[in-house]
Amino acid sequence: MSTAPRPGTGRVVALCGGVGAARFLRGLVRVVAPEDVIAVVNTGDDREFYGVHVSPDLDIVTYTLAGVVDTAQGYGLAGDTYALMNELEALGHETWFRLGDRDLAQCLHRTLRMRDGVGLAAITQELAERHGLAVSLLPMSEQPCPTRVVLKDGRLLHFEEYMIRERAPDAVERVDLSAAANAKPSPGVLEAIRTARVILFCPSNPVVSIGPILAVEGIRDAVAASAAPKLAVSPIVGGAAIKGPASQLLRGIGVEVSALGVARHYRELIDGFVFDERDHELAKSIADLSLRVRVTDTMMVDANASARLAAQVLELAGECA
Amino acid sequence: MSTAPRPGTGRVVALCGGVGAARFLRGLVRVVAPEDVIAVVNTGDDREFYGVHVSPDLDIVTYTLAGVVDTAQGYGLAGDTYALMNELEALGHETWFRLGDRDLAQCLHRTLRMRDGVGLAAITQELAERHGLAVSLLPMSEQPCPTRVVLKDGRLLHFEEYMIRERAPDAVERVDLSAAANAKPSPGVLEAIRTARVILFCPSNPVVSIGPILAVEGIRDAVAASAAPKLAVSPIVGGAAIKGPASQLLRGIGVEVSALGVARHYRELIDGFVFDERDHELAKSIADLSLRVRVTDTMMVDANASARLAAQVLELAGECA
Repeated sequence: MSTAPRPGTGRVVALCGGVGAARFLRGLVRVVAPEDVIAVVNTGDDREFYGVHVSPDLDIVTYTLAGVVDTAQGYGLAGDTYALMNELEALGHETWFRLGDRDLAQCLHRTLRMRDGVGLAAITQELAERHGLAVSLLPMSEQPCPTRVVLKDGRLLHFEEYMIRERAPDAVERVDLSAAANAKPSPGVLEAIRTARVILFCPSNPVVSIGPILAVEGIRDAVAASAAPKLAVSPIVGGAAIKGPASQLLRGIGVEVSALGVARHYRELIDGFVFDERDHELAKSIADLSLRVRVTDTMMVDANASARLAAQVLELAGECA
Repeated sequence: MSTAPRPGTGRVVALCGGVGAARFLRGLVRVVAPEDVIAVVNTGDDREFYGVHVSPDLDIVTYTLAGVVDTAQGYGLAGDTYALMNELEALGHETWFRLGDRDLAQCLHRTLRMRDGVGLAAITQELAERHGLAVSLLPMSEQPCPTRVVLKDGRLLHFEEYMIRERAPDAVERVDLSAAANAKPSPGVLEAIRTARVILFCPSNPVVSIGPILAVEGIRDAVAASAAPKLAVSPIVGGAAIKGPASQLLRGIGVEVSALGVARHYRELIDGFVFDERDHELAKSIADLSLRVRVTDTMMVDANASARLAAQVLELAGECA
């Protein structure tokens, strides 16, 4: 059923955040050979918790593709236990960012490897292979690039503090991607983009998932310079984020919370835009942005739905080529 | 039933290793008010495993006194799980030193507190209090003092490598306590010894449990200078260690593996020696070392047995005063 656009030397490069991207990739690897996919993943959410390096989006993508994710949560490992976390809590630690025992082991492994001097990209690929994945997973950068959210009251929060500890309050003044802007891409990222035969913006948060990736030194320019078809899938359906705090954050950077708002946000970088049939009335406005559009069911309720969506995206890519 | 020797300003100071000491302390706190006991605990076995600071003897003593130790093993927490450890193993880590999830949480807590600049003594006391203990627990030193075992083939092993990974081979050339010898005692240790009303050498390994404590700068001299009754309980019964590798290690430093050998090893520092009735034929030889002796059942099969032994020790201390 593969509908890969024009044969090329490069691979399908997907810019990824967490849950939405992971679910999309789960379908993409059913319609493209997994070894033909390079996922460039946001690390702006990374942070040390409990002495271990947590990479939420990398882990969500890895666990989802490996079929071991806790599907109810969208993150973490299915059937994980919380013995260590509960004990830390009993010892008086703040535990608003909860990590299961096995999830924590993955993060501890990452931490110990980093301390041994191994880069995050190599560690990520090792972990992906241990999980049996053939997809290439690349962190956007190996340097710390914490995304920060500035609230209207002036507080500057790490994204996870904003999202998890504070439960994504509305009062967002702006999103600070300066750390990403001062970071270099991981080895292989720019090369992957330059040689890509398709570049996909996964249905992830444009501000705090795709935004940090594009902010990393050279990535936005490399995407802009690529002659490959470039397509985005809207993470906004019916005027709201499917999951997560997109609304507050989009408004925080002056973007309308709609598929049209997202299309406008990406328009200079993309050729095609795929959005949900619930938003079909926006088709003309989006097409008027000089974008090829595809209106379809974008709700990835299961792997088959993900695969159908991925096939549609690739079909549209073929039209953009 | 308390038979505490002459009232004094100081407290009962117990020099402690792991399991034997913990079981003895469990009895001691039944015959002396717990807040009247200061345990000075060996940290020569401490090591970082999996990125966390493990203090085996401190934890054995804490868990045993709190009644939460895994009694079958003598260490670790009863009912602990091993999800994190098993996952680390699956990720390719050496896991010969196994830590349960909750046990690991304690060690991680210690590590995070140390990283915050808190000393090991304060952290140990915090953990003891969280476990509801009234005893004062003092690590012998806050500095790293790894005990090393030199094998006849020239290999130099950390004590835990010798003990756990290599399963205590016989071919011991010598025990290297140079790290302890270059370390300073924890705050409060020398003061506790100087003002002690009794000093007890718990039934712990004389070489690798009590040896490191005495090796720390100033501790041996402080013990020697103390006018308080000083008593040791033999960890050797019937010519063998009750638990652990005492035989190999005692031979490795030229000490006969018997209650008599241990009494000779300690004789310059102690006034009295308590040993097992199975070794009653050694009573005259030990008494001939100018030691007051008490022959009794030293097998601490339960807390009552521990309390009976502790009472005997304190009674003998009264005679030494």
